[in-house]
Amino acid sequence: MTPLVRITAEDVGPLARGAAILGAGGGGDPYIGRLMAQQALGEHGPVEVIALDALPDDAMVYPVAMMGAPTVMVEKVPTTDQLAAAVQALARYLGRPVTHIACAEAGGVNSTIPIIAAAQLGLPLVDADLMGRAFPELQMVMPTLAGIPGTPMSIADEKGNAGILTTIDNAWSERLARSLTIDMGCSAIISSFAMRGELLRRNAVPGTLSLCHRLGTAVEQARANRVPPVGAVAATLHGRVIFTGKVLDVARRTATGFARGEATIAPITGTGDCLRLEFQNEHLLATLCGAVEQVEVSTPDLIIVLDAETGEPITTEALRFGQRVSVLGAPADPRWHSPEGIELVGPRYFGYDTDPVRCGRPAELQELTTV
Amino acid sequence: MTPLVRITAEDVGPLARGAAILGAGGGGDPYIGRLMAQQALGEHGPVEVIALDALPDDAMVYPVAMMGAPTVMVEKVPTTDQLAAAVQALARYLGRPVTHIACAEAGGVNSTIPIIAAAQLGLPLVDADLMGRAFPELQMVMPTLAGIPGTPMSIADEKGNAGILTTIDNAWSERLARSLTIDMGCSAIISSFAMRGELLRRNAVPGTLSLCHRLGTAVEQARANRVPPVGAVAATLHGRVIFTGKVLDVARRTATGFARGEATIAPITGTGDCLRLEFQNEHLLATLCGAVEQVEVSTPDLIIVLDAETGEPITTEALRFGQRVSVLGAPADPRWHSPEGIELVGPRYFGYDTDPVRCGRPAELQELTTV
Repeated sequence: MTPLVRITAEDVGPLARGAAILGAGGGGDPYIGRLMAQQALGEHGPVEVIALDALPDDAMVYPVAMMGAPTVMVEKVPTTDQLAAAVQALARYLGRPVTHIACAEAGGVNSTIPIIAAAQLGLPLVDADLMGRAFPELQMVMPTLAGIPGTPMSIADEKGNAGILTTIDNAWSERLARSLTIDMGCSAIISSFAMRGELLRRNAVPGTLSLCHRLGTAVEQARANRVPPVGAVAATLHGRVIFTGKVLDVARRTATGFARGEATIAPITGTGDCLRLEFQNEHLLATLCGAVEQVEVSTPDLIIVLDAETGEPITTEALRFGQRVSVLGAPADPRWHSPEGIELVGPRYFGYDTDPVRCGRPAELQELTTV
Repeated sequence: MTPLVRITAEDVGPLARGAAILGAGGGGDPYIGRLMAQQALGEHGPVEVIALDALPDDAMVYPVAMMGAPTVMVEKVPTTDQLAAAVQALARYLGRPVTHIACAEAGGVNSTIPIIAAAQLGLPLVDADLMGRAFPELQMVMPTLAGIPGTPMSIADEKGNAGILTTIDNAWSERLARSLTIDMGCSAIISSFAMRGELLRRNAVPGTLSLCHRLGTAVEQARANRVPPVGAVAATLHGRVIFTGKVLDVARRTATGFARGEATIAPITGTGDCLRLEFQNEHLLATLCGAVEQVEVSTPDLIIVLDAETGEPITTEALRFGQRVSVLGAPADPRWHSPEGIELVGPRYFGYDTDPVRCGRPAELQELTTV
């Protein structure tokens, strides 16, 4: 498939839909991110997109993201000033002017927030992100696996408060930035893992903006061609449908800055095993609950909930009783399956007493990362 | 009285004792601050002290303080690196080299922490502080009354984590720095309200290091002369003894980074009205509890608890059942009694439904600030 070379207001629709799919339930409401990005592109014109491997060695790339509980992001929309403020505060502190903007994660608003920042600042956007999906914590990025510090990092709220943090490791960045985010009203804009092009090329997941766009387009085309959109999404991600059913129960709470909870999906016929989803912003565990409980897919692989009919992605905060949904599993970037990756984002990190359960064959994984 | 012109290891004993008195129950354990300051002065030699009104216009003064719950400071002693780190992080950020160190508050460890920083950095210390006493929150300083921002400010822990905050007002500095302090283990070192000499001269309380030293010396001299040390303290501060009795009950909890609670002091005879002390790090309200409750002294004036016999100051975290204590009231800097001062540090700010009750006559207040 042709990768994106620029993003126009027309691209934002499919891109935001794809980002919500890759968000694996997290990353915030794609609707708000879409409106904001469309407005920014309308005002400032298209954003140039550069492939990860085309990034010059001496580029100075600033990832930008929203941190906080998606349940809050829906009501407390970031200001455009806030995005530029976070990036520029870090650039000033480092004394290294911004040449490119990047996504910290692929998913939900965090795929569209960087588009807005790039449009505002008139800078190109890198077709990559640091996770290859959405994860709930700041240190859960490829650079952490390579021992690259996430700080100095910046954080800014919509009121005008800002901070620069320098920490001894990336888990401390998460901890301190999370507390500031909670104080700032449970959502804030951060810029972290600013790095040279040469370093980013080896520590990012390539092509994820294009993948988001391709996913969103696949859903639209499937609808137009009257084929099941869910199948088109599974095929694009080299994933599989784990379960189709109706939402029986959702327990959700906003705690320590996250949207945590679980959901139960019952078979549409009303009888048989249920699927239990456990999430912390993102879906982390999909367990088939029959005579014995069996984990079907777990973090770091993606667990994605789509409307069974339309293929529309449903975020964890939008899950409601009675929705008919298809739950997909899809392979994550294979680097997440290294021992260091599993330690950082595997089920045990999140408190689930299970080994990781992968979705898909390694050959498919390899294929996904080289598209 | 002669003001201090330098601080040697021998001065630290009386100065720390006086600081504990002026700390009004807060400011942390003077013992730990004393040991640390004596060690620093032993290593680096005496610290030069400069009077507030002798400060050059173009001096660049960095106040430094410990933030957190005194109950924690007793066990988690700051490192010497941490002090220099906080000051230098802010100086680097501002691009303005440090010429002088100052105290943010007069009280407990926050009168001795700046001595250590000055000794380490080989810089003079200003004979002044920003409160004229100890108060529990960051924004409760003279510069806030004049609309001077406390940020950019720095914060550093003993592990190597650090931050720079820039906020829309000083209450936000308190809020964000408090959260970081809690994450950092309930105590951290901060540098805030860095300012030019010309500005500090008009927005600090002069002579408070000398006053601490004088208070500590007065207690020692009274003991040597076998006169009541409590009386000597009251005279030095132009205050009065409100109550003498024994501690009947202390309720103390560490909540949201503060040591909060209340204590009841009963008459030594066992019959008659009790005095109730309410504190948040510092004592804020002294209420006589008889047929009717009557506030005797309230914040912003000082409420000081001393051992009834020895005159030794007792911090809120050292209050114990059975101690025989004298409770003193002493006037605060008159600027705290302005409408803006009362809004910032009066009883209602702390949730007590009472007007401020002053201790002492305005004439005496004026006298205190001009010694």
